Amino acid sequence: MTHPLDWLTTPCARIDADSAEAARAYQNTLTKPPGSLGRLEEIAVQFAGWQHCVKPELNRVAIRVFAGDHGLCKQNISAFPQQVTAQMIDNFVAGGAAINVLSRFCHADFDILNLGTVAQPALLAADKNLHLGAGTADASEQPAMTQEQLIAALNAGRDQVDALADCQLFIGGEMGIGNTSSASLIYALLADRPAAEFAGPGTGLSIAGVTHKETVLNRVQDKYQVQVRTSESPALAALQLCGGFEIAAICGAYLRCAQRGIPVLVDGFITSAAFMVAQSLQPQLRDWSLFAHCSAEPAHRNVLEQLNIQPLLDLEMRLGEGSGAALAVPLLQQALALHGQMATFTGAGVDDRL
Amino acid sequence: MTHPLDWLTTPCARIDADSAEAARAYQNTLTKPPGSLGRLEEIAVQFAGWQHCVKPELNRVAIRVFAGDHGLCKQNISAFPQQVTAQMIDNFVAGGAAINVLSRFCHADFDILNLGTVAQPALLAADKNLHLGAGTADASEQPAMTQEQLIAALNAGRDQVDALADCQLFIGGEMGIGNTSSASLIYALLADRPAAEFAGPGTGLSIAGVTHKETVLNRVQDKYQVQVRTSESPALAALQLCGGFEIAAICGAYLRCAQRGIPVLVDGFITSAAFMVAQSLQPQLRDWSLFAHCSAEPAHRNVLEQLNIQPLLDLEMRLGEGSGAALAVPLLQQALALHGQMATFTGAGVDDRL
Repeated sequence: MTHPLDWLTTPCARIDADSAEAARAYQNTLTKPPGSLGRLEEIAVQFAGWQHCVKPELNRVAIRVFAGDHGLCKQNISAFPQQVTAQMIDNFVAGGAAINVLSRFCHADFDILNLGTVAQPALLAADKNLHLGAGTADASEQPAMTQEQLIAALNAGRDQVDALADCQLFIGGEMGIGNTSSASLIYALLADRPAAEFAGPGTGLSIAGVTHKETVLNRVQDKYQVQVRTSESPALAALQLCGGFEIAAICGAYLRCAQRGIPVLVDGFITSAAFMVAQSLQPQLRDWSLFAHCSAEPAHRNVLEQLNIQPLLDLEMRLGEGSGAALAVPLLQQALALHGQMATFTGAGVDDRL
Repeated sequence: MTHPLDWLTTPCARIDADSAEAARAYQNTLTKPPGSLGRLEEIAVQFAGWQHCVKPELNRVAIRVFAGDHGLCKQNISAFPQQVTAQMIDNFVAGGAAINVLSRFCHADFDILNLGTVAQPALLAADKNLHLGAGTADASEQPAMTQEQLIAALNAGRDQVDALADCQLFIGGEMGIGNTSSASLIYALLADRPAAEFAGPGTGLSIAGVTHKETVLNRVQDKYQVQVRTSESPALAALQLCGGFEIAAICGAYLRCAQRGIPVLVDGFITSAAFMVAQSLQPQLRDWSLFAHCSAEPAHRNVLEQLNIQPLLDLEMRLGEGSGAALAVPLLQQALALHGQMATFTGAGVDDRL
């Protein structure tokens, strides 16, 4: 009998090293000093490997926001009330949130999936409401998710990606009041470092609020660190124990993308936690990923350094929803437009050296 | 009798502090944690002040590339031969250069002006060829520009801006083999610091090439430093003595933009030298400017720090042509789209605090 999470270990799709190499060589024929387009050149080479062709394109971007509530909010760790998660889901449906504006700007295919909230969104279609629970459980008292909830959330992310037709880039976004705490706990548990090192103001806690949050997170970590350390899969253990539904769904989505050959553009602090869990399960995910920005949530910089990743943007954003990633889509499109449309030295009759 | 450069001291246009303040207040009504869009919020507020309205737009971008050759190339300070300037002008006309691709991407109004090159471009219309000289003079032997050439170049930049109808953002680009040397000398002379501190590989000099370039630049600086230090206008003196035509034109264009109420998006290492000269003449220019990116030309980072400027992008680009600025245009448009199109807390029925 197969386990419902067996798919997690399906290998990632093959990257075509020949196309990447040919794209790199082609870059050096374009009318510019070699290397002068910096990281844009590297982006074109990466997409060449992903799309198995020398001149890749980026026209079909899928953005999926995953939402869920967090039982840990009972411990007063967020600046916003928990019903805002459902209210923001309705805002996503109505098209008024930041991620809606940015999705429209880059003509992305946008959708939202609610894994489970305390309040019920009024506008979301029934088939987008999964009801895994009225949010996760309070991780300070019991595991955030049951095994069944963890499986359902991971598989919901997978299913969203399986439903995509012909997608060239995937962006996972999240909405869940309290989810910086979940992310901080996952980072702390996997690094076996004090949770306070990964705690920050989130949506806007005061200094006293952050101090309280640190105390709560340290307590939760103490409760679970040994269990995680000794677990067969520390990453899945941390994810189940500290949530949230939406982080698990994004983790599942990232892995399925890499298995299907769809590159992922990782957003910010929360989604990087999903990435870290997913990468623990499948290290080759790394080769299918780009990182959009460094969040203003202070620990994100340390997390990115730990992952040895230099993101594309650093604009002091800390909104989530996939907004930092959506903002970076035109940069990627411009990199591919330059690669595909610039004249060559020979074609333009330009001397390429002294 | 008026001097032909009297216009340089015309005051910059007024920024509407009331609109900026109203835009800032409006930002805090949008469905996001206050401040969570980081620098994008600041961009929207700046454009509000520039456009004298609470919801500014960015649809009409003008990109002007200014080209010119540099007599200092006789001293072997560039990795590319001097005829490439004219060849690249033809590439701009044919639409095959990086800046053409990026201009098309953001639907900018693009044009090119040749101030004076050694070789003659074959494709450029006669009225875009100013023939101020066959490049500047070799600054290691004599001043790069005569007083007449300096005036003509500054005024050519002004005239390009005067010809713009209804422009919401100006990008100046440059093309001129050898112009990192001009820029380095301007920085060094204005800072009264060794030119070697501002020298770098430009289009791709070897380590030995950079060492030779440093020696040449130090010698040129020694020749002119006292003259600049004791000049009535050190900035104009440095510009005239070390060129180039295109840097002077961009300097003139920036100043006219600020006088006409058109914000400028400064590109990279060369254009920042034009900005520095222009700002010396008119400090309020600062309030009409945004900086697109930090160049991979090593000294640019120091220059930006000296100016206390944090640019928008840092992608290891070093191409010039205005390419880094053109790349940043979608970011600005996205910032304004977010500001103008997001729902408010009240409108979307979202609670805005605990």
